[in-house]
Amino acid sequence: MRELQKQVDEWISRFEEGYWPPLDNLARLMEEVGELSRIMNHSFGSKSKKIEEEEQEVSEELADVLFVIICIANSQDIDLGEAFQSVMKKYRDRDSDRWTLKVDSQEAGS
Amino acid sequence: MRELQKQVDEWISRFEEGYWPPLDNLARLMEEVGELSRIMNHSFGSKSKKIEEEEQEVSEELADVLFVIICIANSQDIDLGEAFQSVMKKYRDRDSDRWTLKVDSQEAGS
Amino acid sequence: MRELQKQVDEWISRFEEGYWPPLDNLARLMEEVGELSRIMNHSFGSKSKKIEEEEQEVSEELADVLFVIICIANSQDIDLGEAFQSVMKKYRDRDSDRWTLKVDSQEAGS
Amino acid sequence: MRELQKQVDEWISRFEEGYWPPLDNLARLMEEVGELSRIMNHSFGSKSKKIEEEEQEVSEELADVLFVIICIANSQDIDLGEAFQSVMKKYRDRDSDRWTLKVDSQEAGS
Repeated sequence: MRELQKQVDEWISRFEEGYWPPLDNLARLMEEVGELSRIMNHSFGSKSKKIEEEEQEVSEELADVLFVIICIANSQDIDLGEAFQSVMKKYRDRDSDRWTLKVDSQEAGS
Repeated sequence: MRELQKQVDEWISRFEEGYWPPLDNLARLMEEVGELSRIMNHSFGSKSKKIEEEEQEVSEELADVLFVIICIANSQDIDLGEAFQSVMKKYRDRDSDRWTLKVDSQEAGS
Repeated sequence: MRELQKQVDEWISRFEEGYWPPLDNLARLMEEVGELSRIMNHSFGSKSKKIEEEEQEVSEELADVLFVIICIANSQDIDLGEAFQSVMKKYRDRDSDRWTLKVDSQEAGS
Repeated sequence: MRELQKQVDEWISRFEEGYWPPLDNLARLMEEVGELSRIMNHSFGSKSKKIEEEEQEVSEELADVLFVIICIANSQDIDLGEAFQSVMKKYRDRDSDRWTLKVDSQEAGS
């Protein structure tokens, strides 16, 4: 993750404009999430007419969303990999009883 | 509001497909909010290069969002005007002290 | 619709703070759409564990979204009812062939 | 990135429920983006009253968004790191002239 953040930083740092202000970046995040929604609704929705959508588009839109998230993290000096680990820990502490453990997972845990 | 809901219902009812399932409609709402975000970021963001965006586009995207909201409401038999009044009541009960009343409003209320 | 816009304007006008700037309002719209998503995922998602969610909550979240849309419209002097009519016209012109007309609708149109 | 995807997969694979269907995951993405919006509006919005918000919350919400993106990628067998590289390439090809290169970057590129 740190490498991705560095890669984005090198890209953004080439330009005078630098990172956008927080709410501008947030609006851009929504724009990208909206495009992802359009593709996913086409690909997985039950009613919409399937248009020739490359599966590749889902992955591209996901990566666009990831790019904006990294921009927000970078502009706030946030280590996204570290934040991710603490969120995984939160899920482990909180959600272990929320879902049904598979039998072999239960055995593995005993 | 009731009239708008009826208008949408007459439009949707002309088609075999009818209303989309809830999560399809939700995805569409996200798509429309994403398009609104794009326009608003262009028009009001601090860094992005202004492209010739008609102000009209903001109003069109807002109306697209409104259309999807009405679709969701209709498909769930929700009276949106009624829901709106109860939300206005919630705001009045909850938020009256959250912001700074204008002097003349305070007088009007005393 | 015009009446709803006026009602919101009277409410907001009571406070010194007035309408939020556009991107603040947009962020708030995303927040409300997020809450709607949470409820709809609980109520209509296929995997999530049903928690006792009042159906009333969907209507409340929809109305919250409507409130923010009206705030954005008002702060930009947009007549939302008018914009809605022009969007309905757009759908009629564009989408009439996109879906399957019901037989009686076809007859009605002939 | 691949490591993060694997970590999520090991976590999700412990449970009978497995990955959510695509539109359920999309709704959850919107929910997390909504929570991020709430925090960012509080922290960076111009009008809202600052509540004691830990900066930590922004990083946590960003990581929540990242988690859902990885879930969607995993459930569709998408290599997010690879998709990210192809998006970076797209930006390089498309946006190099869109922003103002810093002087030293121009020199570096000549």
